[in-house]
Amino acid sequence: MGEATRQGRLRKAPEHFLDAAGIARVQEEARGGRRDFLRGAFAAAAAVTAAGAARAQGDGDPNILQLPEHSRGLGQGVATDGYGKPSKYEANVQRRPSPGLTQTRQASVSFAPLQSLFGIVTPSGLHFERHHQGWWDIDPTRHRLMVNGLVKTPKVFTLDEIMRLPSVSRFHFIECGANTGMEWGNVAVPSVQYTHGMLSCSEFTGVPLVTLLEMAGADLKKGRFLLAEGADGSSMTRTIPMELITSGQVLVAYGQNGEMLRPENGYPLRLVVPGVQGVSWVKYLRRLEVGDQPWATKDETVHYVDLMPDGTHRQYTSIQECKSVITTPSGGQQLLDRGFYSISGLAWSGRGTVKQVDVSVDGGRNWRRALLQGPVMDKCLTRFSLDWVWDGRPALLQSRAVDSTGYVQPNYRQLREVRGTRSIYHNNAIQTWKVEANGEVRNVQVS
Amino acid sequence: MGEATRQGRLRKAPEHFLDAAGIARVQEEARGGRRDFLRGAFAAAAAVTAAGAARAQGDGDPNILQLPEHSRGLGQGVATDGYGKPSKYEANVQRRPSPGLTQTRQASVSFAPLQSLFGIVTPSGLHFERHHQGWWDIDPTRHRLMVNGLVKTPKVFTLDEIMRLPSVSRFHFIECGANTGMEWGNVAVPSVQYTHGMLSCSEFTGVPLVTLLEMAGADLKKGRFLLAEGADGSSMTRTIPMELITSGQVLVAYGQNGEMLRPENGYPLRLVVPGVQGVSWVKYLRRLEVGDQPWATKDETVHYVDLMPDGTHRQYTSIQECKSVITTPSGGQQLLDRGFYSISGLAWSGRGTVKQVDVSVDGGRNWRRALLQGPVMDKCLTRFSLDWVWDGRPALLQSRAVDSTGYVQPNYRQLREVRGTRSIYHNNAIQTWKVEANGEVRNVQVS
Repeated sequence: MGEATRQGRLRKAPEHFLDAAGIARVQEEARGGRRDFLRGAFAAAAAVTAAGAARAQGDGDPNILQLPEHSRGLGQGVATDGYGKPSKYEANVQRRPSPGLTQTRQASVSFAPLQSLFGIVTPSGLHFERHHQGWWDIDPTRHRLMVNGLVKTPKVFTLDEIMRLPSVSRFHFIECGANTGMEWGNVAVPSVQYTHGMLSCSEFTGVPLVTLLEMAGADLKKGRFLLAEGADGSSMTRTIPMELITSGQVLVAYGQNGEMLRPENGYPLRLVVPGVQGVSWVKYLRRLEVGDQPWATKDETVHYVDLMPDGTHRQYTSIQECKSVITTPSGGQQLLDRGFYSISGLAWSGRGTVKQVDVSVDGGRNWRRALLQGPVMDKCLTRFSLDWVWDGRPALLQSRAVDSTGYVQPNYRQLREVRGTRSIYHNNAIQTWKVEANGEVRNVQVS
Repeated sequence: MGEATRQGRLRKAPEHFLDAAGIARVQEEARGGRRDFLRGAFAAAAAVTAAGAARAQGDGDPNILQLPEHSRGLGQGVATDGYGKPSKYEANVQRRPSPGLTQTRQASVSFAPLQSLFGIVTPSGLHFERHHQGWWDIDPTRHRLMVNGLVKTPKVFTLDEIMRLPSVSRFHFIECGANTGMEWGNVAVPSVQYTHGMLSCSEFTGVPLVTLLEMAGADLKKGRFLLAEGADGSSMTRTIPMELITSGQVLVAYGQNGEMLRPENGYPLRLVVPGVQGVSWVKYLRRLEVGDQPWATKDETVHYVDLMPDGTHRQYTSIQECKSVITTPSGGQQLLDRGFYSISGLAWSGRGTVKQVDVSVDGGRNWRRALLQGPVMDKCLTRFSLDWVWDGRPALLQSRAVDSTGYVQPNYRQLREVRGTRSIYHNNAIQTWKVEANGEVRNVQVS
């Protein structure tokens, strides 16, 4: 990686990215992503001697064998940080807001840097954020969870009471219903961080919600719906269908990637509703009410509804349909020479497991089957990859996922036939990245 | 969780823990672990009204309904941290050194807080540390990896060249060969953080080492061994048998839990040798040499050898045998009332998957089969759990794992029959936690 590129990675986030200058800045920034394709990288891998290798690491006269400081000196001791942090050279790998997108930072989004991530786990420090009235670090000793409504015995649980119950740990993705929302308008947001970065994946730990309902003696015959309510000022409330709960899938979670939830993600308690859009994963969870019909709260009537071609609103379309995206190479990155690349990306489905991913380098004319990285888990991200030799001509990179129900991810033409063009939420269309002859990678839409 | 307990969690790490006062301090500290069992917790889960629940969260007169500040005000905005961190209330969940154990912090260990962790992923900020001459944050643009020895074309790779190759991501545990080493001496280290905390588990991403050997034209017939060398001042060198490499298991890794390796764990490159003790996972990896016999380096002759009963040293015993430990309840924790507990712990094997875990509450007389949490992966931690109702009498908690080869984790009598009592490394015996009648949990050894 060249010095210039590395320095580029340390540039601050752009102020606005939807104008031409902003796009240029983000492209500059994305060029500093983990996969920078150095010109002549492979050609440079020539034979050298041991002395040559040492010189490459040395900091003095290149003709004199000199070991770098870290091979001669004494480093830092253990527990310099009781809680460690990333290398200073990775400072540019950040979740980033889109300043033009919302009027305040308290009702806004920050996007996970998908172009810089590997595998399927999202580091909790880079997990995307979506707040409706800002985030809080709530004292867990004072937090309570109430279960009421159609129950024999309403209950209030402390965190310790919940943590004493049998728990499960499961890997699941979480995606905001508005992820990829700007692409409805063919805005061509420049990088995968901003097109698909309201997506993360963690190992969540918690108590199956059904356990708490059983303890409260919930009427599971009449009680076909559950209202989940958060403790932050937005009073987020969402209706959850009871069949998701009685199947044992929905968790009242306190753990994420081995530790307690992070404050931005609902510490000390959040709902985990696998496969369902993020807004239903209510954060700072304080109340669960069992009822006999959906609540039609503000966040399921005014927001998070789909405006259809006939002018009606589609409601309660909560399940995130099968979707995929190539994260490398992706918008804003640059291929600096021809030759071998490993195309890599993520696939997921709110209805089950990913069964197959196909990749096209010619805009959907021809497809090749990608390799799926195991373990392939239910309602979880799956990493795919495919070998590719770039011949230096323009290319249109696409990925298309198929889930365990047989559903095939649509292209934009297919999606718009059903959904029209005026939606904000639930865009799961095939993403296209165009590789220009000069190696620049751009976001384009093709049908 | 009571105020006193929460405050207890914020106490600083003990200076020394092997004397009586130190043990008392660690017990105090461990009592603040994630699972604190509040007296009368379940009895307190009585019915209350909505107003009562709100009062429980309020900060004013308990008789006046008042919502807490976080339910009334505006919280913090997105990307307050471009890279987030845990709640301030979790500040006591830290990796901790054992100051009495080594003379310097540069050649030492910090232990992961297993008693506070969930599931199988170890947050990278809490990953255990083992340094031989301190840790460094090495500039990745200047780092090189050389492949030499019995190869047609010696090669030097930049990080970008390695990251451009096809990669894999896999979940694996890493355990220091000296983990649980103090228990050979029946020292009864007080908490699971110090008995078993040189153990972590991550999703690692990297290039199969065999790919690099093929690119260099390695002689895989004569070249039956590989030397891996680190770039830090300790010049850590370890011999890796070629069969582990040609099977595709050994990775030259740059990614951990979705992001780049942390500096303390070898950034920008480390070896991942699944199933093998941590010392062979060479950090700051700078050189790989193909050879026709083991190198017998200092760290495989003077250190990391097993002193056997007949006075000989057993060498190259690198594979971590099947092992397990209960993390909740564990030493230093306290059961504050009788009744239901979910016993939970971790099992692993360097030879494959965990097939079965049995749990005893009477020191090994009777065993019950524990539940294994999926996915159960090769050479990876597996979380197990078992429901238990404590009757208030003293109990001896043990877990015993069986791996996919049929190997059964030994008790101390069985281990000492083969290994004697003078080893430091490779202690995989069954751990016993004694629950006293007053609820205190202590580390004891029974055969």
